[in-house]
Amino acid sequence: MNAQGSTAQIDLNSDVGESFGSYTLGDDAAIFRSVSSANVACGFHGGDPSVIAQTCRDAAAAGITVGAHVAYRDLAGFGRRFLDCSPTELADDVLYQIGALEAMAHAAGTAVRYVKPHGALYNTIVHHTVHARAVVDAVKAYDPELPLLLLPGAVAAEIASAEGMRVVTEAFADRAYTPEGTLVSRREPGAVLHDEELVAERMVRLATEGTLTAVDGTEIRVEAASICVHSDTPGAVAMAAAVRAGLEGAGVRIGSFA
Amino acid sequence: MNAQGSTAQIDLNSDVGESFGSYTLGDDAAIFRSVSSANVACGFHGGDPSVIAQTCRDAAAAGITVGAHVAYRDLAGFGRRFLDCSPTELADDVLYQIGALEAMAHAAGTAVRYVKPHGALYNTIVHHTVHARAVVDAVKAYDPELPLLLLPGAVAAEIASAEGMRVVTEAFADRAYTPEGTLVSRREPGAVLHDEELVAERMVRLATEGTLTAVDGTEIRVEAASICVHSDTPGAVAMAAAVRAGLEGAGVRIGSFA
Amino acid sequence: MNAQGSTAQIDLNSDVGESFGSYTLGDDAAIFRSVSSANVACGFHGGDPSVIAQTCRDAAAAGITVGAHVAYRDLAGFGRRFLDCSPTELADDVLYQIGALEAMAHAAGTAVRYVKPHGALYNTIVHHTVHARAVVDAVKAYDPELPLLLLPGAVAAEIASAEGMRVVTEAFADRAYTPEGTLVSRREPGAVLHDEELVAERMVRLATEGTLTAVDGTEIRVEAASICVHSDTPGAVAMAAAVRAGLEGAGVRIGSFA
Amino acid sequence: MNAQGSTAQIDLNSDVGESFGSYTLGDDAAIFRSVSSANVACGFHGGDPSVIAQTCRDAAAAGITVGAHVAYRDLAGFGRRFLDCSPTELADDVLYQIGALEAMAHAAGTAVRYVKPHGALYNTIVHHTVHARAVVDAVKAYDPELPLLLLPGAVAAEIASAEGMRVVTEAFADRAYTPEGTLVSRREPGAVLHDEELVAERMVRLATEGTLTAVDGTEIRVEAASICVHSDTPGAVAMAAAVRAGLEGAGVRIGSFA
Repeated sequence: MNAQGSTAQIDLNSDVGESFGSYTLGDDAAIFRSVSSANVACGFHGGDPSVIAQTCRDAAAAGITVGAHVAYRDLAGFGRRFLDCSPTELADDVLYQIGALEAMAHAAGTAVRYVKPHGALYNTIVHHTVHARAVVDAVKAYDPELPLLLLPGAVAAEIASAEGMRVVTEAFADRAYTPEGTLVSRREPGAVLHDEELVAERMVRLATEGTLTAVDGTEIRVEAASICVHSDTPGAVAMAAAVRAGLEGAGVRIGSFA
Repeated sequence: MNAQGSTAQIDLNSDVGESFGSYTLGDDAAIFRSVSSANVACGFHGGDPSVIAQTCRDAAAAGITVGAHVAYRDLAGFGRRFLDCSPTELADDVLYQIGALEAMAHAAGTAVRYVKPHGALYNTIVHHTVHARAVVDAVKAYDPELPLLLLPGAVAAEIASAEGMRVVTEAFADRAYTPEGTLVSRREPGAVLHDEELVAERMVRLATEGTLTAVDGTEIRVEAASICVHSDTPGAVAMAAAVRAGLEGAGVRIGSFA
Repeated sequence: MNAQGSTAQIDLNSDVGESFGSYTLGDDAAIFRSVSSANVACGFHGGDPSVIAQTCRDAAAAGITVGAHVAYRDLAGFGRRFLDCSPTELADDVLYQIGALEAMAHAAGTAVRYVKPHGALYNTIVHHTVHARAVVDAVKAYDPELPLLLLPGAVAAEIASAEGMRVVTEAFADRAYTPEGTLVSRREPGAVLHDEELVAERMVRLATEGTLTAVDGTEIRVEAASICVHSDTPGAVAMAAAVRAGLEGAGVRIGSFA
Repeated sequence: MNAQGSTAQIDLNSDVGESFGSYTLGDDAAIFRSVSSANVACGFHGGDPSVIAQTCRDAAAAGITVGAHVAYRDLAGFGRRFLDCSPTELADDVLYQIGALEAMAHAAGTAVRYVKPHGALYNTIVHHTVHARAVVDAVKAYDPELPLLLLPGAVAAEIASAEGMRVVTEAFADRAYTPEGTLVSRREPGAVLHDEELVAERMVRLATEGTLTAVDGTEIRVEAASICVHSDTPGAVAMAAAVRAGLEGAGVRIGSFA
């Protein structure tokens, strides 16, 4: 409940559907008890059609919003490696993935309601204008109403906004922030937060006041309508549950932006 | 022109969009001058997203109907090898392919209007009840109005019809038929016809009278609303053009069934 | 110690190196504490070059013999689905996999010392003469001295023996046997044994007397110079350790056949 | 025959074995009539095991030296896209490819006698120290005697030489050179030479005098023990034949460096 008496709301998103064939990754069922939005792998970095289908059915049953977690075509690298593809190749790869997921979501009684780039693609379009535009073009060609879930300040966000598209930005629950509002590099000590209680408190502040405490102690504003919680790290499930419990305990409504 | 003065109509379909990356297969542009329906590869046996996108744009520009040419997941074997996948895997693979193609078709201003299984899958569901049902289930889950293009007599056709779905059957322009109405095996001499004029004449008879002359000289009835012409064999383009010219010369209207 | 005072010896083999990119499968380090032979995935059903390289280094460090676990080209199905490839395709795929593994093994200071087909290929060449011959041809072309690890009675074993090649047959630690000496189908109750102590006792009998008790209580002879223990099922590590401990406790020497 | 009466010798190399499944690329049989060294694809950018096997048999029959044409793992991009993999991943990928090819070459009665990186990897290791070192490490781990075929001045050449390995550099038959001895960018006019007679003359000069005329008319020294001729561009076969004929006509002996 903020000063105006209205209830704060925020989305919790996580990566799911990343298992492949005999390979299981993450505990999607457990994560689904905490999040409101599911970034579903589309088969290019993880996920196979049967995994994706089951994930869509589970998301639909749990009332969780489905988003397309699009990636570079790199199963061997789990989409975590930059691939210097042409903008045409990238746009077509993105479109293909969204469509494939949409069919699975549709058969499960739901639909793709947003797009979130994965891994190296997510990081690349923070600064790589050509790839950023390719992703935006693909989403726009599919459905100009489909929101993009991005890092605040990403060049892809500027391009999408300029195209009149909706951009939703996210914060990372377990990451430390610089005074400038960017993520502390994972190579720095203290980049990743492990204290569930602290993380939950931070996310409540974010949801209710739009602020976070940076590593140097300064208060910074972070614009985020969604919070990303991890799904495949040790303690991920507990962290997601703690964040949800903290938010609910503070009266923050958890619901998807899409 | 049949006895009632009405104009006979038939569809000409061919496989396109099968190129992959640096690999080119077939002369789609040339084939597009003859056919009315395009069986577009969906990426599992051939086709990559950029090839598929371009194929959809070309089909849309030429006014050709787009169908999903779904296949076993086997790029190395071009979908020509039976793969003993589970029915769930197969149904999900088919659904994924239809959806991926639909996104590309949609961005090109057209849509997937039918489904035709490719290669080993096409042949398998003539007799393999489990795989036939999986394909039918997938198409029905996607859109129960979407017609299936199949071999006459295929068990998949029975299953789809029993589900209330529309089945369209096809004849093969350059293949000899047994007196029972099945294709003469490619292992037999004379299984494949190479005489363009003869093939064109046969297809006119098929379109106007619904009959073909079998290898033993008997006249057989062949139920086919579409004629399949090859796209990647030597002489394929010329054969397709000859069939079209023959049909048009006989006053048969060429148009898609979907 | 058998009647003649000589020490019985047997091999313990298990499947390893099956992780892929971000996907981890099995606990190879734990399994390496029990086995004497490592069936290392070669990249076609599981395993990527870095996983394989690390597995070879670990096997070399532990003094475990490396074998090539060759499979149908089917990463999505983990090599568990029959693929109706041509014998030429199969033989070339097998040869390619052996060579790839050999380079990794060589760089790790060891070498490929046997070949064991994986999953659907293992089961198929029990009865499929054409695929059995293709596998045998590939191994022979690579090195006619390389032994094949197979199911007793497999048609591939007959073909390899007729070619003058060495065949080693194996028993399955946790599987029940029919009076005819074949495995009880997994669809039957009691097909899989879960009692570690019982399994260990059975394997001691097998190693020292060459016999097992079939499901109907009859004693059967089972010819096996190696025992396969699973690596990726619940309890696999404990079962492997129990079998090893049982054998060692009974004075059976554990060592590879190759 | 040069002034000293000794016979000049040079190698002609070309990319082969790049077909994949139903996809044919290049006319390897025709190219084999001209070259002395075959850069055989290893399956990561092109080539499948059966294509590779046949290519090795054809090379062996024609007395052509086999080299491993190693690439980034990117079949969809034909190895022409930079992939930001880790040095460990790259080294292991290279080792895997060399080993796979060696098995096929061995079965064909020949062997891998050199390594030439392909496409984006070839260009990247001209300047990318980390990837260059990874490639060198992999080749050294496989066999420190195996020469590397590289662009003159590549950082990979420096690293390999410092490791005591043999480096062979090549010139490109149909490319224009800057006065500094580098290739004129393909984006510049005149970068690619199409006049077979002119190209043949240039290659004779290169083989006999070690010089080429740069785009500005200056004479430059180019150190090259091998000449690369293309295999998959229009006119490639004729150009390769013209270069060979020109060299032979000038008394230059054509033979592999390895």
